[in-house]
Amino acid sequence: MTLATMDPALLDRLGAIVGPKGWTTDPAEIAPHLVERRGLFHGATPMLLQPASTAEVAAVLRACAEARVPVVPQGGNTGLVGGQTPPEDGHAILLSLSRLNRIRAVDADNDTMTVEAGCVLAEAQRVAAEARRLFPLSLAAEGSAQIGGVLSTNAGGTAVLRYGTARELVLGLEVVLADGRVWNGLRRLRKDNTGYDVKQLFLGAEGTLGVITAAVLRLFPRPREVQTAFIALTEIDDVIDLFHLMRHLSGDQVTAFELVPRLGLEFVLRHLPDAADPLPEAAPWYVLVELSSGQPPGSLRPALEDALAEAAGRGLIKDAAIAASESQSRALWSLRESLSEAQAVAGASIKHDIAVPVSEIPAFLRRASAAVRAALPGVRPVPFGHIGDGNIHFNLSQPAGMNPQVFLSQWSRFSRIVHDIVAEFGGSISAEHGLGQLKRDEIRRYKDPIEIELMQRIKRALDPDNLMNPGKLVLP
Amino acid sequence: MTLATMDPALLDRLGAIVGPKGWTTDPAEIAPHLVERRGLFHGATPMLLQPASTAEVAAVLRACAEARVPVVPQGGNTGLVGGQTPPEDGHAILLSLSRLNRIRAVDADNDTMTVEAGCVLAEAQRVAAEARRLFPLSLAAEGSAQIGGVLSTNAGGTAVLRYGTARELVLGLEVVLADGRVWNGLRRLRKDNTGYDVKQLFLGAEGTLGVITAAVLRLFPRPREVQTAFIALTEIDDVIDLFHLMRHLSGDQVTAFELVPRLGLEFVLRHLPDAADPLPEAAPWYVLVELSSGQPPGSLRPALEDALAEAAGRGLIKDAAIAASESQSRALWSLRESLSEAQAVAGASIKHDIAVPVSEIPAFLRRASAAVRAALPGVRPVPFGHIGDGNIHFNLSQPAGMNPQVFLSQWSRFSRIVHDIVAEFGGSISAEHGLGQLKRDEIRRYKDPIEIELMQRIKRALDPDNLMNPGKLVLP
Repeated sequence: MTLATMDPALLDRLGAIVGPKGWTTDPAEIAPHLVERRGLFHGATPMLLQPASTAEVAAVLRACAEARVPVVPQGGNTGLVGGQTPPEDGHAILLSLSRLNRIRAVDADNDTMTVEAGCVLAEAQRVAAEARRLFPLSLAAEGSAQIGGVLSTNAGGTAVLRYGTARELVLGLEVVLADGRVWNGLRRLRKDNTGYDVKQLFLGAEGTLGVITAAVLRLFPRPREVQTAFIALTEIDDVIDLFHLMRHLSGDQVTAFELVPRLGLEFVLRHLPDAADPLPEAAPWYVLVELSSGQPPGSLRPALEDALAEAAGRGLIKDAAIAASESQSRALWSLRESLSEAQAVAGASIKHDIAVPVSEIPAFLRRASAAVRAALPGVRPVPFGHIGDGNIHFNLSQPAGMNPQVFLSQWSRFSRIVHDIVAEFGGSISAEHGLGQLKRDEIRRYKDPIEIELMQRIKRALDPDNLMNPGKLVLP
Repeated sequence: MTLATMDPALLDRLGAIVGPKGWTTDPAEIAPHLVERRGLFHGATPMLLQPASTAEVAAVLRACAEARVPVVPQGGNTGLVGGQTPPEDGHAILLSLSRLNRIRAVDADNDTMTVEAGCVLAEAQRVAAEARRLFPLSLAAEGSAQIGGVLSTNAGGTAVLRYGTARELVLGLEVVLADGRVWNGLRRLRKDNTGYDVKQLFLGAEGTLGVITAAVLRLFPRPREVQTAFIALTEIDDVIDLFHLMRHLSGDQVTAFELVPRLGLEFVLRHLPDAADPLPEAAPWYVLVELSSGQPPGSLRPALEDALAEAAGRGLIKDAAIAASESQSRALWSLRESLSEAQAVAGASIKHDIAVPVSEIPAFLRRASAAVRAALPGVRPVPFGHIGDGNIHFNLSQPAGMNPQVFLSQWSRFSRIVHDIVAEFGGSISAEHGLGQLKRDEIRRYKDPIEIELMQRIKRALDPDNLMNPGKLVLP
């Protein structure tokens, strides 16, 4: 089906629901919504809707359900697996939540705020800060990612180690169901054992069971002291002992524990003009560690120094640099945050977003690195990421001098090699990003068929006509 | 249907599955499993099964599914809402998980352990401690409550403020489905975005969707310092400001923040022969606060003293006593923990397990106390519990001199009054205990009918023949 074949009466009805500011059929206005950031998926749609209220979302879904026309919800369009991209044949309506963006309430005494789906993540953080609270979810795309999207994808980011993924930051939801009815589950309670926890179904469902229109988010006290260090290790095996030693000696105040390999650091030093190696001698592995505490400032720096001295005494670390100022801390973080883009200095790269049990990280890194090197001599693994979450971005840089396109043409071959090893370690082939279109079929290779069937039963129970973001996550 | 009418061939088949140690039809052996602690519910069954492996549970459920015979799973039989009690007409098989009680694995480097459903909670805590880790879930019945039961009821307890309810302490599950197939979801991952989070359905489902046979539990660093104080307040309104002040000034190290009313303390002083009032002058309200930290001992006591000085300076508190030793701390805790049973010194009591947003606690207490006093002059509210979770045990002692049975006969009248006010505050009529049989129908008065319908759709999708603990939580 194409634009020409969608019932004009339906488009008229949808336009009337959202009003003149809420819809467009102009291909130029729609175009930015049809491709995601990495350009892997392209979609089509006859109409982009931007409702401004939950009632409008409900009326849109009711009209689409009656007409048996699918709906693809979209937030900030920052997802990386094509979950927010409409199907190529243009038979679905694209529903942007960006105008549904109010902060409905901030209840600092309850450590909650109620926000609509289209609220940008950075704005939610800002409003929490105004109330002298912390909304801890933080990720690279926070300036454009929207709350509805981060909840629908159970986003991770840099604060998972302390505060959990998006799922754990939600107390209540408002959802428009596939038939257009509104479920008001906007509870603000920390304890409520009155039946199945229905909201859990919609969190991480990538819009395939309904459209999240608002959420009650948990807030936390703000940290009052932050300390950052860049630590050199000789052996990858020591990284797990170091993690637990830091965690125990700091009193569980570790908020980031990020792996950086030497090769990645070298790429960053070539890529960033102002970057400097924080340590005088090279080492094969580094960890960026951040401690933060809500206690009165002053206690964290000695705790960090004591922990590093203890680690050195046990022979776990080779050297370490503690940031002496906020600008030094930012400089250390920029080394870590530039890793992904800095890989471009070495040509093309093939990326994987995987998780294994924390205890298995060293063994996994050895196995996977050896396997990809055996598959293509000269390939350069640059594994980095969130040790404390077991989440490694197992990225591969092409062999020096190889044609980039030839290397990239082997993406699925390398994914198969890496993901098969991930599975042997009881891991996940999508730690943060979701399934969307990219991994919807690949997951069937790794997941228990009974679990796939349970997912299908849930899909059919909540969206019997397969109208909610069809073709994403799981087929009914 | 009674024992006499259940197909003997099925009972033979079930007995053969679990072997001679795994079943009984002896009424005397079965009897303790047919009544719950408060004696509100009595059940019947022709056979008690105690399988010793997941494979045996699976074979039992397969046989029962083929025969269309319902199964009631039971853990330590410590639930308070009749969720674990078989139906009175004896047409269901009772399935005890108590022999399925192995610790399958402890992975300290991954901060996880894998335990079977019948493992007693206190044993799980002990095994974690042996690995120098903390499994934080803790509740009064921990000496007999089993892991499968605490997960199936999403148990709360005393560590929720810091570590969350049971749901938040689980990374993976193994579940036998209604048709006898085994879903192996025993993942040990902190990040895994590969589809619907199926395990969330079984957590808190009270055994109505399948039987949890094993779980991967999260472990944490052990605290190294604990400080306890007993604080007197003049105004209930100040308790919320005090909570936030303590939380912020301690660096979010508050692990308990428990409300005690003066009348409750007086009951305890009369009830416990060795108890002493911790403070020289009476006050209308008290808070038992506990701070704990994993940092090197020494920093928490000054933080507590500073916070109390600040609270006194702001006029939030009247007086406070800090425990100077572990035995003093235990004495303060025993005041709090004796509240429920000490109410017996004042005659009969009517109990409620409710939650409201933390910010609404003072207003709720005023409204609900006035309403019950208006309904019955002389009735004495003794509200106590977990301020930090918004969870109040809103218990009522009978008017002095009234006939206890006459007072108790008004239980449902008072529940209606209290629960209607809870609903006005956006609260929960079962914060910790679940629905079971006790509140299965009452919840329909308070929950959005759409949510009830979603629960029914889930039930029918996962247990289409209504064989898993039928009649509990929700009717299909």
